[in-house]
Amino acid sequence: MAASRVLVYGGKGALGATCVNLFKSKNWWVVSVDLTPNEDADANVVVTELNDWIKQSESVQAKVDELLGSNKLDAILCVAGGWAGGNAKSKNFIKNADLMWKQSVWTSSISASIAAHHLKEGGILTLPGAQPAVAGTAGMIGYGMAKAAVHQLTYSLAQGNSGLPTGAVVATILPVTLDTPMNRKGMPNADFSSWTSLDYVANLFYGWTEGADVPKTGSLVSLSTKDGITTVTCSECCQ
Amino acid sequence: MAASRVLVYGGKGALGATCVNLFKSKNWWVVSVDLTPNEDADANVVVTELNDWIKQSESVQAKVDELLGSNKLDAILCVAGGWAGGNAKSKNFIKNADLMWKQSVWTSSISASIAAHHLKEGGILTLPGAQPAVAGTAGMIGYGMAKAAVHQLTYSLAQGNSGLPTGAVVATILPVTLDTPMNRKGMPNADFSSWTSLDYVANLFYGWTEGADVPKTGSLVSLSTKDGITTVTCSECCQ
Repeated sequence: MAASRVLVYGGKGALGATCVNLFKSKNWWVVSVDLTPNEDADANVVVTELNDWIKQSESVQAKVDELLGSNKLDAILCVAGGWAGGNAKSKNFIKNADLMWKQSVWTSSISASIAAHHLKEGGILTLPGAQPAVAGTAGMIGYGMAKAAVHQLTYSLAQGNSGLPTGAVVATILPVTLDTPMNRKGMPNADFSSWTSLDYVANLFYGWTEGADVPKTGSLVSLSTKDGITTVTCSECCQ
Repeated sequence: MAASRVLVYGGKGALGATCVNLFKSKNWWVVSVDLTPNEDADANVVVTELNDWIKQSESVQAKVDELLGSNKLDAILCVAGGWAGGNAKSKNFIKNADLMWKQSVWTSSISASIAAHHLKEGGILTLPGAQPAVAGTAGMIGYGMAKAAVHQLTYSLAQGNSGLPTGAVVATILPVTLDTPMNRKGMPNADFSSWTSLDYVANLFYGWTEGADVPKTGSLVSLSTKDGITTVTCSECCQ
């Protein structure tokens, strides 16, 4: 039997690299898509055309087409993203909103397009949402807008005429704070026991590919961590 | 007493021009912001830098700064927008998503920034949402993402630390279909009596500036039209 195949969009980031390593350890064939290669992956797509959404999408998709040929992906994990703040009066409001859009929405949309063309029937697509963006996020307006767009994209992709293959499951994780080295550096005095571990998230995704507690397609999956214990809640806000 | 002042973002479009004319007829000082001037307005800001959000914002704001000096705006009506379809498999998915982002989110964000710097205390900011984007919009994914971002922006701007002046009211209209010449041309066989008239919307905005049925700040204001009669419902989805 051929190995299962996963594409990790953002596979060189903290969460992405954790996913790459976990799926590799399970003998999956893993392709990483990111700004730089992840040497632990079986194959890499390096993202270029950083200032043009259309050209970036065309470039990434051409490389994915070439890598896969007629092979299908079992799962696409989009874990790209980033964080930048700013309210409407901030000097960097528009600059940061632009960055957030590129980091979360360009990546999620290109992942959706890859899913439409290369995911197998019944395959899994995960997207990177954020719990705070379910309400207002005045101190990080661009971040909230980008994540809200990803949440709504989830609802669209779950509909029958979304272009995704039959039976595909799209689910978007809504963490509050992920326990990454960058977040520890940025918030050294925070309570790390309320942050969600990368291993937890990677194992959650892996479980879904194994059929364990798979969310209903179109779900926003809240990850709430307290005293080191993470609880998963599938909300379907506004549905 | 000095005339009241309104900025209409998208003042050369169908709804924008209707707003410009109504506020002019009430003896307001009206500035239109759009790709081309609206000769009926008292002043115009022509939008340039169409491919760079940051430069576009800087250019528009510099012109608004110069026009207003220390004068404050009583209202900012962002009625810019457009429509393009496409699901995740469409050839034009990313291209149209990019266009929708520019037409709805760039304009709304720049309007928010103008509000942070030039709206008077207790002034009104309206943004262009869309009823369908409260749920999934598989046939028009880019449109839905952009409008969902505008909805979430509304929640952010309503919070105390958003950067907006004290007592400002931000409200986002959620029409289904506006009765514009372009929509009549695009959907000639539709039931026009279920479309919301531009005069209705312009008068709704004008009423808010007069203190009539002003929505709570952060409201999504659904406009539902049947047999030519429009009903207004302030929802606060996900709040």
